[in-house]
Amino acid sequence: MPDTFDMNLVQRGARLRRSPYFDATRRHGCRAYTVYNHMFLPSAYDDPVKEYWHLLEHVAVWDVSVERQVEISGRDGFALTQLLTPRDLSKCKLGQGKYVVIVDQDGGIVNDPVLVRLGKNRFWLALADSDVLLFAKGVAAFADLDVEIREPDVSPMQIQGSKAKQVMKALFGPKVLDLGYYFFMETKLDGIPVVVTRTGWTGELGYEIYLCDGSKGDELWEKVMDAGRPYNIRPTGPSDIRRIEAGILNYGADMTLENNPFEVGLGWLVDLDSKADFLSRKALERIRRRGVTRRLVGIEIGGPPIEFNTTKWVVRAGGRAVGHVTSAIHSPRLKKNIGYAMVPIAHAKLGTRLKVETPRGERDTTVVRKPFIDPRKEIPKS
Amino acid sequence: MPDTFDMNLVQRGARLRRSPYFDATRRHGCRAYTVYNHMFLPSAYDDPVKEYWHLLEHVAVWDVSVERQVEISGRDGFALTQLLTPRDLSKCKLGQGKYVVIVDQDGGIVNDPVLVRLGKNRFWLALADSDVLLFAKGVAAFADLDVEIREPDVSPMQIQGSKAKQVMKALFGPKVLDLGYYFFMETKLDGIPVVVTRTGWTGELGYEIYLCDGSKGDELWEKVMDAGRPYNIRPTGPSDIRRIEAGILNYGADMTLENNPFEVGLGWLVDLDSKADFLSRKALERIRRRGVTRRLVGIEIGGPPIEFNTTKWVVRAGGRAVGHVTSAIHSPRLKKNIGYAMVPIAHAKLGTRLKVETPRGERDTTVVRKPFIDPRKEIPKS
Repeated sequence: MPDTFDMNLVQRGARLRRSPYFDATRRHGCRAYTVYNHMFLPSAYDDPVKEYWHLLEHVAVWDVSVERQVEISGRDGFALTQLLTPRDLSKCKLGQGKYVVIVDQDGGIVNDPVLVRLGKNRFWLALADSDVLLFAKGVAAFADLDVEIREPDVSPMQIQGSKAKQVMKALFGPKVLDLGYYFFMETKLDGIPVVVTRTGWTGELGYEIYLCDGSKGDELWEKVMDAGRPYNIRPTGPSDIRRIEAGILNYGADMTLENNPFEVGLGWLVDLDSKADFLSRKALERIRRRGVTRRLVGIEIGGPPIEFNTTKWVVRAGGRAVGHVTSAIHSPRLKKNIGYAMVPIAHAKLGTRLKVETPRGERDTTVVRKPFIDPRKEIPKS
Repeated sequence: MPDTFDMNLVQRGARLRRSPYFDATRRHGCRAYTVYNHMFLPSAYDDPVKEYWHLLEHVAVWDVSVERQVEISGRDGFALTQLLTPRDLSKCKLGQGKYVVIVDQDGGIVNDPVLVRLGKNRFWLALADSDVLLFAKGVAAFADLDVEIREPDVSPMQIQGSKAKQVMKALFGPKVLDLGYYFFMETKLDGIPVVVTRTGWTGELGYEIYLCDGSKGDELWEKVMDAGRPYNIRPTGPSDIRRIEAGILNYGADMTLENNPFEVGLGWLVDLDSKADFLSRKALERIRRRGVTRRLVGIEIGGPPIEFNTTKWVVRAGGRAVGHVTSAIHSPRLKKNIGYAMVPIAHAKLGTRLKVETPRGERDTTVVRKPFIDPRKEIPKS
């Protein structure tokens, strides 16, 4: 990995947007950027394994302002938001968040955002990598609802890791420690408007700070670094090792519009037995009735450490290509190669032996339970 | 620019997709990739100025499979496609294409694809960088139309430049030279199914070959290279110098969802006086009635050659920030710095003097006519 990163390698012109923290990430030595929601996502400052250990032992800050928000409001804000997701939003209190899937009329997953409920009819969706703003506007075109749909000036950063609580306490005082998992509070940090949520993409203890004034990105970043210095805070890329250990999915890799929630293990986000009115209801009822034909399973890949997959490796059973690996990585803690594969249900049982074509040859692979590491007790399913 | 490109600088895991030509672009020495429609877009094999001259003097091939297609079909395929765009599609013959804007119910530009009409009710939209598949599915959710909307296995490449005709003739025989501007034909190349269109992103003479079988990417690429060898064909990145000279806009930079077609000079794509039924009609009628408040103008920036802008530079008038530059680049042929700026109509008149804040200081800037170089006579507006 080079010492500095030449943005010309990933950027041409002003088409892709910069985060409010962009200058800070450059100054703090970010050495790789990928693109997510038409913006640059800092993905590495150092070796990913070092960044992983730092997350476990200390605390990391991630610029995830690429989690663009869609704000839905107006008299029918609740109704439109409910149309988009099969999770029963009548169960979501004001001040609460929920992990949800956005699902289209054919049962395909459009996105898997964190939803927060700011008012009776006002919601934010913190997006994975797809244009939900356009999907929502499309749905609203003929839904005959009184709504406003827009992208507000809101840019999250994540504070994750074993010392995240100490950093957040130093920044916001002890009240922040009262936040329940997936709850949030609106507050100010020395005048900077923010929303603080107890959420994250790690299975570690963590928080997100949603900056609500893009002109203050640099200022907020340095305040976080100052507060975190005693706890050895470091900016890093999002840790794929840690999220895969935790069984967390990455939209675009582990699920796409081609998948329904049931086959990727997100059936718990589908409240068909509620009275909620969502546009995927008929399709999801049909899929539930017929059952799924394939399933995203946990896998353990034998042999020496693998590199993080950059394509969807072929999975074979009895010599025949039957599916593909969506994510696979070496866990330094488990000393194993772990990941997920989409396979027909005939090959989805725990203990099934498969073969995986890695760039370094075919490997013996076993279907195993996920998550690979149980989340901390403080982190319930939400 | 390095000799080889480390994909880890822009890629983490298998979230972003590879083009069917990806292996070929690596083999042929691509040294920079950006991301477009969740895929890797080869953006440079060499210095962009050298690539520009090569396009003018010889012929270039671009991997633009990032121009993902949305296919709309079914009994109401025409009706849904017409809902999405304010251009009167009754004027589009079978076998013909049109440059169109997709516009939402508020008048905002969602995308500016090339549309081709494959059947009475069957269309492809070759997309700029936004998820029109999701927008179209959203619109269809409550539009009560009988349609199918999907992404077909179709991956365009562009053959552009003064010798493009010779290369296309060598590949497809003389019949290809009969194609009118923005017309297309479905054919096979040694068994490989393709659609050939007379379109492009240069203002030069050019064609696109839409590969209709992703497994044949490498084979098609090498056939094109073989046919092009006598004409000195080279793979290059899309030429921003040439497209700015031609007055062509880049979605995401020169126009976004925040813009309506009138203010960016695309009013000629809005057929309000037709009977076409499109969902942006009311909003666009209102905007036409009230008039626009700002306009995307051509600009000439004084002083020594500038680098291609990577952010939207501030435009000042009388010391006050009044707008921003969306694209600006040095034209080696014109020996001038040219580009576009979005400014209030009070500052949009030809000859208006402005200041632009470039990374190398403030520069005198003048509003000028665009395009900067008239298209070849063979290239009418379409």
